[in-house]
Amino acid sequence: MSKGEATRQVVLERAVEVASRLGLAGLTIGSLASEVELSKSGLFGHFRSKEALQLQVLAHARQTFTDQVVHPALAAPRGVPRLRTLFERWLVVCRDSAPGCLFVSAAAEFDDQPGAVRDQLVRDNRDLMESISQMFRTGISEGQFKPDADPDQFAFELHGAMLGYFHAYRLMGDPLAEKRTHRVFERLIEDVRI
Amino acid sequence: MSKGEATRQVVLERAVEVASRLGLAGLTIGSLASEVELSKSGLFGHFRSKEALQLQVLAHARQTFTDQVVHPALAAPRGVPRLRTLFERWLVVCRDSAPGCLFVSAAAEFDDQPGAVRDQLVRDNRDLMESISQMFRTGISEGQFKPDADPDQFAFELHGAMLGYFHAYRLMGDPLAEKRTHRVFERLIEDVRI
Repeated sequence: MSKGEATRQVVLERAVEVASRLGLAGLTIGSLASEVELSKSGLFGHFRSKEALQLQVLAHARQTFTDQVVHPALAAPRGVPRLRTLFERWLVVCRDSAPGCLFVSAAAEFDDQPGAVRDQLVRDNRDLMESISQMFRTGISEGQFKPDADPDQFAFELHGAMLGYFHAYRLMGDPLAEKRTHRVFERLIEDVRI
Repeated sequence: MSKGEATRQVVLERAVEVASRLGLAGLTIGSLASEVELSKSGLFGHFRSKEALQLQVLAHARQTFTDQVVHPALAAPRGVPRLRTLFERWLVVCRDSAPGCLFVSAAAEFDDQPGAVRDQLVRDNRDLMESISQMFRTGISEGQFKPDADPDQFAFELHGAMLGYFHAYRLMGDPLAEKRTHRVFERLIEDVRI
């Protein structure tokens, strides 16, 4: 990795944190420059524009989420163990790390702002939902789930449960949030088990 | 209603719309003044500070949500019809009106910003969750639901489903969002029916 690339990675990591606090819209090259103690013109050399910065922050958060959640799930045995790994890792990312927060807050910020950032968010979310559906299908083909179970409905409900968890944990400080979300997951699996 | 109060109501209605687009944090007395074509000092006379404005916008959105969702539910027969009315009205508010959006985006904006606005959001959400639990309890006492069904779990899951709906509809433009959310609701009811 070149020195320039290494700097870019460090700055992006920090930028994901800033964006998860202030919102992606609140992340400007100016505000980031003071956070990372680099000159505005230096940062501008790395990222070119606010939108390019936002897109690279999203890409960095997505990569982190994929490494911490999706890849471990794909490494687990097909069907229930894979979905359970996905769920457990996702909970941890939602609870403890900036990328988990970023996708929830960015969705609320950009859902009515057409443009490249919104388009990227839609693609990222679609990829995630399709990954979940695909993991669910391995449970059908392994004979663990009913053949007529609906993989996209499972993905939709699991995603809603994670948004509910995030809200209950982060805003409400609900001490039962994790336990309640576990109950949703177990019930989703029970409903389709053979 | 005095002329001053009438103006305040008109301005607040507009402010809820602006905040649902730009975020509650993006709503300033200056930005609102240009939207409603009143002077900044005139608006300042009505609202005193940005935080006071934000709190009054939340209170206005809460009142609209209560009028459009909670009151019609309480007017419906106890148990399933009441919960179904709540659910149907909530879907409509989420889909078509600014107050529905405001609470979702404000939660993402303020979950890590301590202060009066966050405190009010927490209280409003707690009130809503308790109202849902209470509506659910009428189903138990009417003998429609299992006596050991958990009202707070129902409220938690219904809320997660609505966040999932909002995300799928507003960000993803998913044409199946409403149908999928209906399936979650019907399953939540089926699970606890006697």
